[in-house]
Amino acid sequence: MTSSPAVRDRRTTAAANLRRLLEPASIAFVGGRGIAGAVQRCRDYGYAGDIWLVNPNHAEIDGVRCHASVADLPAAPDAVFVAVPARQAIDVVRALAERGAGGAIVYASGFSETGADGAALQQALVDAAGDLAVLGPNCYGLINGLNGSALWPVAHGAPRVESGVAVITQSGNLAYNLSMSARSVPFAYLASVGNQASVDIARLVDAFVDDPRIRAIGVHLEGLKDVRAFSEAAARALARGVPIVALKSGTSTLGAQLAMSHTSSLAGSDALYDALFWRLGVIRVKDPVGLVETLKLLAIAGVPERRTLAALATSGGDAGLVADLGEARGIAFPPVGDAGRDALGSVLPAYATIANPLDFTTTPWGDPDKMRACCDALLADRPGAAAMILDYPQEATGERPLCDIAANAFAASARQHGVVGAVISVFPDLTPPDHAARMAAAGIAPLQGLADGIDAIGAAMTYGDTRRRILDADALTALPVLRAGNGDDGAATLHDEWSSKRMLVAHGLDVPPAECVAPADAPTAAQRLGFPVCVKVVSDRLPHKTEAGAVALKLASPEAVAAAVERMTEQVARHAPDVRVERILVEKMADAPLLELIVGVKREPNFGLALVLGAGGVLVELIRDTATLLLPVRDSDVRDALLGLKLGPLLTGYRGRPKADLDAVVANVMAIARFAQAHADTLVELDVNPLLAMEHGAVAVDALLRLDA
Amino acid sequence: MTSSPAVRDRRTTAAANLRRLLEPASIAFVGGRGIAGAVQRCRDYGYAGDIWLVNPNHAEIDGVRCHASVADLPAAPDAVFVAVPARQAIDVVRALAERGAGGAIVYASGFSETGADGAALQQALVDAAGDLAVLGPNCYGLINGLNGSALWPVAHGAPRVESGVAVITQSGNLAYNLSMSARSVPFAYLASVGNQASVDIARLVDAFVDDPRIRAIGVHLEGLKDVRAFSEAAARALARGVPIVALKSGTSTLGAQLAMSHTSSLAGSDALYDALFWRLGVIRVKDPVGLVETLKLLAIAGVPERRTLAALATSGGDAGLVADLGEARGIAFPPVGDAGRDALGSVLPAYATIANPLDFTTTPWGDPDKMRACCDALLADRPGAAAMILDYPQEATGERPLCDIAANAFAASARQHGVVGAVISVFPDLTPPDHAARMAAAGIAPLQGLADGIDAIGAAMTYGDTRRRILDADALTALPVLRAGNGDDGAATLHDEWSSKRMLVAHGLDVPPAECVAPADAPTAAQRLGFPVCVKVVSDRLPHKTEAGAVALKLASPEAVAAAVERMTEQVARHAPDVRVERILVEKMADAPLLELIVGVKREPNFGLALVLGAGGVLVELIRDTATLLLPVRDSDVRDALLGLKLGPLLTGYRGRPKADLDAVVANVMAIARFAQAHADTLVELDVNPLLAMEHGAVAVDALLRLDA
Repeated sequence: MTSSPAVRDRRTTAAANLRRLLEPASIAFVGGRGIAGAVQRCRDYGYAGDIWLVNPNHAEIDGVRCHASVADLPAAPDAVFVAVPARQAIDVVRALAERGAGGAIVYASGFSETGADGAALQQALVDAAGDLAVLGPNCYGLINGLNGSALWPVAHGAPRVESGVAVITQSGNLAYNLSMSARSVPFAYLASVGNQASVDIARLVDAFVDDPRIRAIGVHLEGLKDVRAFSEAAARALARGVPIVALKSGTSTLGAQLAMSHTSSLAGSDALYDALFWRLGVIRVKDPVGLVETLKLLAIAGVPERRTLAALATSGGDAGLVADLGEARGIAFPPVGDAGRDALGSVLPAYATIANPLDFTTTPWGDPDKMRACCDALLADRPGAAAMILDYPQEATGERPLCDIAANAFAASARQHGVVGAVISVFPDLTPPDHAARMAAAGIAPLQGLADGIDAIGAAMTYGDTRRRILDADALTALPVLRAGNGDDGAATLHDEWSSKRMLVAHGLDVPPAECVAPADAPTAAQRLGFPVCVKVVSDRLPHKTEAGAVALKLASPEAVAAAVERMTEQVARHAPDVRVERILVEKMADAPLLELIVGVKREPNFGLALVLGAGGVLVELIRDTATLLLPVRDSDVRDALLGLKLGPLLTGYRGRPKADLDAVVANVMAIARFAQAHADTLVELDVNPLLAMEHGAVAVDALLRLDA
Repeated sequence: MTSSPAVRDRRTTAAANLRRLLEPASIAFVGGRGIAGAVQRCRDYGYAGDIWLVNPNHAEIDGVRCHASVADLPAAPDAVFVAVPARQAIDVVRALAERGAGGAIVYASGFSETGADGAALQQALVDAAGDLAVLGPNCYGLINGLNGSALWPVAHGAPRVESGVAVITQSGNLAYNLSMSARSVPFAYLASVGNQASVDIARLVDAFVDDPRIRAIGVHLEGLKDVRAFSEAAARALARGVPIVALKSGTSTLGAQLAMSHTSSLAGSDALYDALFWRLGVIRVKDPVGLVETLKLLAIAGVPERRTLAALATSGGDAGLVADLGEARGIAFPPVGDAGRDALGSVLPAYATIANPLDFTTTPWGDPDKMRACCDALLADRPGAAAMILDYPQEATGERPLCDIAANAFAASARQHGVVGAVISVFPDLTPPDHAARMAAAGIAPLQGLADGIDAIGAAMTYGDTRRRILDADALTALPVLRAGNGDDGAATLHDEWSSKRMLVAHGLDVPPAECVAPADAPTAAQRLGFPVCVKVVSDRLPHKTEAGAVALKLASPEAVAAAVERMTEQVARHAPDVRVERILVEKMADAPLLELIVGVKREPNFGLALVLGAGGVLVELIRDTATLLLPVRDSDVRDALLGLKLGPLLTGYRGRPKADLDAVVANVMAIARFAQAHADTLVELDVNPLLAMEHGAVAVDALLRLDA
């Protein structure tokens, strides 16, 4: 898509302004007495640039000189924290835009989150901002742990870092608590986005992707304002190998209602977010602790190259728990190799069980060489990741130096063998900060909590798998989601089965041999096609043919066809008096399938087009056997989705049954997808139900289309 | 079951000895120089009874006087920590038994966990012990937080308590780390059971149930040695309202192998443990943190009476996460009542969303009365439990007193309204110890980690539901599992379909009208029964009739029956030449069912008899739609299990289909269960496949029995 020079200029300016906001060389605070604390905290945080304070009523606040207005500032600030009430904030933002500032945090609430009046205020704010990068309103702001600019109204606990993770959240409170939690996460950025009036999650992700100091991005979201923009940014992140970890709230009915009520974001169906995250390799976590542990692992230790884990534990109990938790997450534990067995045999007592996960017993405890030998025995085989399970007792026990010996041996072994490494304490509080800091410095992630730690490892492995899957193939699914039409769904036009099938056939759909004829010609058409046949009334005013008695199956003779047409005509006259039976679809009956599938495409606000594949028939709703993909899709995505269905094994020859023609099934789904993509502007809904998977070929027995008029 | 007076005496002595070990008035340590530290730690822990030290080589160790032998002790000690190598430990235990000590911890390893030689040593230990209560060998021992007796080889971090939880674990290391973790769990006991040579998990549970200071029992197990004894103890715990929380490891294939290798316990199938825990109301958790948080809630705040939760949060983000996590665990959030809405309307700003979970905004923050009003608005409706989501920032922020105001208001409200209450920090480390202690003292559980906290609340609610379900009904399922036979399964006798059905019919199973006749008489038998019929060859040497061509279905005439019998005879002659076709089962064909079920009973080592119910047909294995129950069962258990199947809705009239005769289905399953119970001594395997659920009645179409000869 090409843009006019003026549009490109504005984009360039906006992007430059956002960069100024994110890493400012000068910052200003605008507000009353309360804001002086924020100035001091920013200084204490070690920010080296200019810090100015704007207040029209005071010459100084708490010893900090005040400028009377934005216009009085010595220069245009790169970043400004605006802590004045909503209406005043609009004026300040306007003045900042005029002055040529980079960006502003608007802390005030009272905008779109409060209803229609607030939404009008928010529009006024956006208008006043122009190209100024505005974060908020109704947000806490931005903490930059890289250069120490804390545009933040309250205290925070984030340490300064050289590199680390950027976290973007719709909840200021979550960012606050994240910063306070002493979990050794290197926060390069903490951004609270509030109402996302201007700078939204997608723009921040996009900006963070290009900063090599940012090793991973965390996002807490209730809903995305612009799915397409997010998918573009996330696709860039995937290409560059910057993992994104998402905590999506509003997944429950109640949670979605709450999200709708206190933000202006649309929650969207959870299956759509799953589909979006899957195609973009976005890691999904279930709670804030999962967000933190996963980010920590990715930022400190990196992404595993294989889905295999070597684990060492100080007890058989811990080893067993690791095996259980890992296996449940699809993590493989490769058996110890021959060389490793020999090495362990010379270090461990005869009764020790040589296995992975390894209970290394108390024998090597406190002995650096033996501990190292144990680690090397497992890590030399280069598993995707390695973990040592280690809980530090309280200081007074004097045991901590012995724990250090184990941890250091593990860290050295992981470094030597180039394995992604983590030390995990079963209990989150049994990772002392000094140990965590030493491990982090050695590139070993200090994970806290066994289940959360193993979850993080599994998630990082899934990210690695996904990235390889997408990058090894063509880049199609790494592309953003389709831009779809946005017509009034209710006003869309229904196409009858014959017309729907013809359109789909043009894109490659397989349908049974059929003719569409006048009622009187049905018996001869049936003879031409060969028996048995089915006949159906063709009308764009009969979406539910079966209920209207407009379908007859398994007809074996011309007489049966004639009788069926007569009967159907009567039934339709009763059921839908305004429908005239003028055309009859006569179709050769398909044989019994190996599996009955449903394939649907639906326009989803914000998400483009969603393709839903599922096992059909009467049981489908009871076992909810469906997969959702966003368009465009590749053959291999469709194949994986089909095989991933609970009834998927029926496609590949279950219990001595014949194999289905999987290639043909995939080709038919792709034909439907191609049709949908070609009609992305107008497609409202498309249903092929059923698509029959046969031993030879696949065939779409019914189809229904709704397109914008 | 009656016992001889001698057996009863021994039991009484053993029980008394275990009580002496658990709460000793005098304790002794037997060991070398290293043990003096344990003596000192026990004194430091505040143990008020006599502490003696036994060592033949020293007059004193580190200032503690040594007795030369057990015989030299001033009195028989109630509890003894034996820290000498394996062979010596046997002699010490014998001496203790002779001296009349209560019990002993055997710390040494080198027993059954090391193989056959060790197993012989362990038997020698058991023989030497007699009625002495021996914990271990290969264990850390016992910490009693109630009276301060720490029979424990190393440091520990457990505080002294007045009441609390008893934790029993197969992993000494887990107990050690549990004691070190600063999670405000009041440990009344920590017991490491090691090899369970004598005192096992079941005996400890049984002993703890009667101590009113023990509010909940935690068990970490790899496998139970004696399922029946555990089920008896757990049934008593359920009756007395002492919740048991279990962390079962070895759930994965790999984990089970590890458990087998480093303990002598049998892992058993996970579905059997699920069935056992379900019938006994045992709460199952997935990791050590879950164990701790669930125990903390139960011990400090108690058991919710309803599955409803009122939650208050300091932000919309937290409120949304609580809703998501709670809904996923089946917890209901009742809407705020009218009175509550009015009260909140006068406290909160106009834009606040009045909902449960409630984001109480910053308006009431720091105001005790307003905070209290917010809490009362939700708690006055008496939900099953209430939670306040609250993360304490770092001390330096000065915000902690404001957090205290919120927490105290919540605690007062929970007390006034008699609601089970918890404060939950999203991040585990943002619950400061002093706040946790204040909350615990007020009967509010300080839970750490949002997902773990909500999990704990859901688990406690499930416990409450289960206990009411079991106690409201007759006590059948609160009874221990059946004692089953233990014959050689391979040597069991197969019964043919006719014989199997006759035996089951005698207990109430419904089967189609049928006759068992000579081959030549089949056509006339069919005429008597009425067509269509099916015919099958009857032989106890044909377990797989269909594969042998020994079944013919839907025969509509005498001629068809005759032809089928002839054809079957030929096929059987080819397929199984040693089977003589002498009897034919002629059976009236059953109509098409609404749902095809399978019902099986299997003898399971240690677990008695397991009843498996499932949806049958070709899809059953793909969707794994089964439920496992242990015998005996009640009608209502069977009904719940059937309705809980994924295809269960087909029984109750799915999408306009007819309802199945659920009473008849349940009656047939109960007939099978009754048969199994009556034959518990000899039943190896029983399969009714399929049992057809019809609109009127239910009918067992095939049945197969294997009984000990």
